[in-house]
Amino acid sequence: MKILVVNPNSSLAVTQGIDAACAPLRMAGGPQIECATLAEGPPGIETQQHVDGVVAPLAQLVRAREAECAAFVIACYSDPGLHTLREVTRKPVLGISECGILTALTLGQRFGVIAILPASIPRHLRYMGAMGVLERLAGEQSLGLGVAELADEQKTYGRMIEAGRTLRDVRGADVLVMGCAGMARYRNPLQDALGIPVVEPTQAAVGMAVARVRLDWASTRQT
Amino acid sequence: MKILVVNPNSSLAVTQGIDAACAPLRMAGGPQIECATLAEGPPGIETQQHVDGVVAPLAQLVRAREAECAAFVIACYSDPGLHTLREVTRKPVLGISECGILTALTLGQRFGVIAILPASIPRHLRYMGAMGVLERLAGEQSLGLGVAELADEQKTYGRMIEAGRTLRDVRGADVLVMGCAGMARYRNPLQDALGIPVVEPTQAAVGMAVARVRLDWASTRQT
Amino acid sequence: MKILVVNPNSSLAVTQGIDAACAPLRMAGGPQIECATLAEGPPGIETQQHVDGVVAPLAQLVRAREAECAAFVIACYSDPGLHTLREVTRKPVLGISECGILTALTLGQRFGVIAILPASIPRHLRYMGAMGVLERLAGEQSLGLGVAELADEQKTYGRMIEAGRTLRDVRGADVLVMGCAGMARYRNPLQDALGIPVVEPTQAAVGMAVARVRLDWASTRQT
Amino acid sequence: MKILVVNPNSSLAVTQGIDAACAPLRMAGGPQIECATLAEGPPGIETQQHVDGVVAPLAQLVRAREAECAAFVIACYSDPGLHTLREVTRKPVLGISECGILTALTLGQRFGVIAILPASIPRHLRYMGAMGVLERLAGEQSLGLGVAELADEQKTYGRMIEAGRTLRDVRGADVLVMGCAGMARYRNPLQDALGIPVVEPTQAAVGMAVARVRLDWASTRQT
Amino acid sequence: MKILVVNPNSSLAVTQGIDAACAPLRMAGGPQIECATLAEGPPGIETQQHVDGVVAPLAQLVRAREAECAAFVIACYSDPGLHTLREVTRKPVLGISECGILTALTLGQRFGVIAILPASIPRHLRYMGAMGVLERLAGEQSLGLGVAELADEQKTYGRMIEAGRTLRDVRGADVLVMGCAGMARYRNPLQDALGIPVVEPTQAAVGMAVARVRLDWASTRQT
Amino acid sequence: MKILVVNPNSSLAVTQGIDAACAPLRMAGGPQIECATLAEGPPGIETQQHVDGVVAPLAQLVRAREAECAAFVIACYSDPGLHTLREVTRKPVLGISECGILTALTLGQRFGVIAILPASIPRHLRYMGAMGVLERLAGEQSLGLGVAELADEQKTYGRMIEAGRTLRDVRGADVLVMGCAGMARYRNPLQDALGIPVVEPTQAAVGMAVARVRLDWASTRQT
Repeated sequence: MKILVVNPNSSLAVTQGIDAACAPLRMAGGPQIECATLAEGPPGIETQQHVDGVVAPLAQLVRAREAECAAFVIACYSDPGLHTLREVTRKPVLGISECGILTALTLGQRFGVIAILPASIPRHLRYMGAMGVLERLAGEQSLGLGVAELADEQKTYGRMIEAGRTLRDVRGADVLVMGCAGMARYRNPLQDALGIPVVEPTQAAVGMAVARVRLDWASTRQT
Repeated sequence: MKILVVNPNSSLAVTQGIDAACAPLRMAGGPQIECATLAEGPPGIETQQHVDGVVAPLAQLVRAREAECAAFVIACYSDPGLHTLREVTRKPVLGISECGILTALTLGQRFGVIAILPASIPRHLRYMGAMGVLERLAGEQSLGLGVAELADEQKTYGRMIEAGRTLRDVRGADVLVMGCAGMARYRNPLQDALGIPVVEPTQAAVGMAVARVRLDWASTRQT
Repeated sequence: MKILVVNPNSSLAVTQGIDAACAPLRMAGGPQIECATLAEGPPGIETQQHVDGVVAPLAQLVRAREAECAAFVIACYSDPGLHTLREVTRKPVLGISECGILTALTLGQRFGVIAILPASIPRHLRYMGAMGVLERLAGEQSLGLGVAELADEQKTYGRMIEAGRTLRDVRGADVLVMGCAGMARYRNPLQDALGIPVVEPTQAAVGMAVARVRLDWASTRQT
Repeated sequence: MKILVVNPNSSLAVTQGIDAACAPLRMAGGPQIECATLAEGPPGIETQQHVDGVVAPLAQLVRAREAECAAFVIACYSDPGLHTLREVTRKPVLGISECGILTALTLGQRFGVIAILPASIPRHLRYMGAMGVLERLAGEQSLGLGVAELADEQKTYGRMIEAGRTLRDVRGADVLVMGCAGMARYRNPLQDALGIPVVEPTQAAVGMAVARVRLDWASTRQT
Repeated sequence: MKILVVNPNSSLAVTQGIDAACAPLRMAGGPQIECATLAEGPPGIETQQHVDGVVAPLAQLVRAREAECAAFVIACYSDPGLHTLREVTRKPVLGISECGILTALTLGQRFGVIAILPASIPRHLRYMGAMGVLERLAGEQSLGLGVAELADEQKTYGRMIEAGRTLRDVRGADVLVMGCAGMARYRNPLQDALGIPVVEPTQAAVGMAVARVRLDWASTRQT
Repeated sequence: MKILVVNPNSSLAVTQGIDAACAPLRMAGGPQIECATLAEGPPGIETQQHVDGVVAPLAQLVRAREAECAAFVIACYSDPGLHTLREVTRKPVLGISECGILTALTLGQRFGVIAILPASIPRHLRYMGAMGVLERLAGEQSLGLGVAELADEQKTYGRMIEAGRTLRDVRGADVLVMGCAGMARYRNPLQDALGIPVVEPTQAAVGMAVARVRLDWASTRQT
């Protein structure tokens, strides 16, 4: 029983951050959790072209690894290819945006999202509209930083605090979702600083995948 | 690390069914899962009076067991006392209705709910309205059976099939949620018969609780 | 024909304010209006625990007084026990939050709510979600004052003006609802100062109860 | 203190039915309730042209009677001219559709509407969309009868029962609103036959007007 | 084949602006586009009374010109009489508010509206609620200028820039709709200054009318 | 000035149907309308894999043809690649699903959609959720026919009539949208048979593109 967590961008540092974030979910007797990097991906998924561009290699990867895996997690906050992959395999496929938001709904009444770039926001709004959860959205704020720039810890953390305060104090959020898989290392300090729950979405998705694998809920669908 | 799953009705048979449903989520290195019966509860939670009536004993139980428990799951589809308990303890408290519905959102685009009694439906509608997920609801159908009557397997299963077919074929549901903790044993046959995913909500909630415990997300809230 | 207006907190000053607010609705030929204090209630209803905690004594009170009363009004902006009480008696039971908001919908297009404490807001949001009226909500602002502190007239009124201005000018509210039964005395000055209608919710609910009693609409429900 | 209830169609029989429906709301110490017929109106308001066509004479009537009246009720389920009249006078103006629906929200979780003609339904849907209450709508069914035909009691009542049953059993309504001022006489038998509350909207609006008049809430608006 | 664009206010300057805005939509082989002024209209449509007041003369105009026209456009952002006119003629009738907003939905994810007066906003909110598009609304800001004052170019343009910046930067709009037919001349400079698309709604509606006429979609309706 | 209408499936018959449907929109003095087939596309776009799979070749095509084209229309009801293409070029890119639905909103209050396959429906629901128009959706019915099978005129038309009747009579649709670019030839007979407007979505999108090109609204976006 193995869960394959795929980072659809090609940045190893992001995959390493994801891998560290998954550590607490590795349990004796539980499914193995492997974090992989999509070699064909761009350094960061920052545009709709990036999102649509990784679907084909993701599908190829899922097909190649399907026999040995019990579930897949797409570790990019745009959930690229989620519905294509749910056609490619009947094994559970979870997206971190979907799972991060759903988890936030259990931790507060209005969630805020911290995005990397302003251009991410309309894409996320479309996605949350498709999910039907906009009534619970307090707002979304961007850092104005691309995925690569997230490595600059001081700048990133400062902007996260600022975005988080705006979401909490001006927009009324009582829980936050980190809108990028590359933000994992900032979860604990951000939550401590802001005093409201902060959801790291890869953890949220992998946690749900662990249960899904254990329950052996085949993804039954009418054909 | 122990998760306490509380059946707020006093029916031991329901607790036993819940306990069996949790089995796959017990992992060597994972949290212990204990299923308890609320002695003060009614035989089944079938009215708003029942729902409101178990909040006080639930709060008492959570206070009494808090030191030894890492998380709590309220195993009744009306999520009685959920927000009171989230005040009583900072440890994670999950409700099976909330988690069951959120899990369904990852398995289909329009979910249907199988309720026990017609009077459950307006109560559930209020709850789903509070959750902000009505846009994803295909519909809800009741069996016309109280909690005790769920023990009559033949009658219950026949009505479940009928309700599930209506939800799938007339209301357009592509995933179902079982709207009572006492339906667990019927999940597998129902899913096989209908060909669409069926969510057993206690499994959904306990699965999320396992991850919550492992991640040690203290439920940070502003005071 | 008597309407029993129950203040579910134990503060007599609040009950007296409610009683004064009801005066214009006492008409020769109309139903009697009696305002009662729930002795078992806390000094103010400020948490979900308070809300859930008064349901049982409210139910007891309604049962005890049912024979002599034609309708009941629950005079707390969290509408504690509303749906339990609607099971307990077939006589009309109205909540001041529900009636206050519905009345506001006839006086403006976007309503704002003035809450006592920040923690009231998520609870109210859940309630307005259950009511399905969030599309009409401009926003909610809290005073940062508990029920007892509302007696400090100068501080309370100053913060009300501030909250009202924010709701009107920043959030776009064109009608306000007072989010606590203990604010009644401030309605007239607040409305004069802000220049938009201000709904005192107990008046809204008692007004609807008068009509309900006169019309003798038995609360017919399928059983 | 007088409430003027205006029937915007020219059918005296409809005004007489309205007048009878208002009887229980006449209290010794309460406002007078006068029911008037708009001579300039069509025999029944059945199209958008009818709705828009009565706005000018309604405004004229309100201007002419304003000095002696404390509130106005527009007794047509399309609430013709409601927002124009709220500009014409600062005294309360209530519409029976708005008040009927808001009242239904206190009597059930999903309301159904019984319309006269199929063409009424899109007009009502636009109105309920403007009110922001569609999440609570179970459905609307028309009788296929014009206002004049409502006088045929046997045919009307038979179709009402049929429409009500469809709304209750197929669409899930647990409360009904009569979608025409000319249906008042059928409220009691319909409610008895269906076993769920039935709102006669003129009664709902006049009841709210009584309270509005007594409370002397000037309709304060920014100018 | 002629499209009649009716300016329902009596200001010739507005009609001239509309006419100039329509110029690019006049094509050799396309329908003729005639812009007419409603002599009976007020100088500007600024209140609900104005809106309701022009319906009768608009209907008269449409009846008078129906034989020679293939489609009608109502060039006022309150879409006065839209649904009455759709009953008066089976030829296409388009409103600039409806078409302007629908067009904006193809140019951004959250649209902002620039209104003339504060009192326009609740009227527009009701209309957008009826259209069911409020989930896509970022916000609406008014200029505090009546229709006549729009002729003061310097003052108008300055306030438009200010309103547009608020909508873009504070409310999150990524596309704007001009909320008055008299703003056409400012579209290009406003779009250049703000860097997001700006929809001139008469152009949007006339563009859709051209296609409607060419396709000869009779407005088939059940009777 | 040329509008390139791209059929993203490789079926020439579908492209020919689209081309015929565009004929009335070709005007002397208006933009040229060229209909192209995406050679790399599958015979029909029937799954999410098909949708995601054509994005790359569509982007390549748009890049290759951008210099000579003034606007692009994606003639597949899943609007594949719409947001990627809006990044690829600043020239207008319109999708037939988006434009077909927006056009339907001007022709009725509740629209129905006729899909080809049951599996199309959840995909369309996600899309309409992202558009924020679900409040106006009456329902969607599928024919149970793939794109290739649409060529069987008798079977297709019979099922269309049946789906249309269900949408009109059971689900309450007063306007229909054809949910596939390959249904164009059936628009006129279907509309005649059902007596409610039927929107052929490619016509709707190309009509909007003609206006967009004429108005020269550069798609200004912040960068």
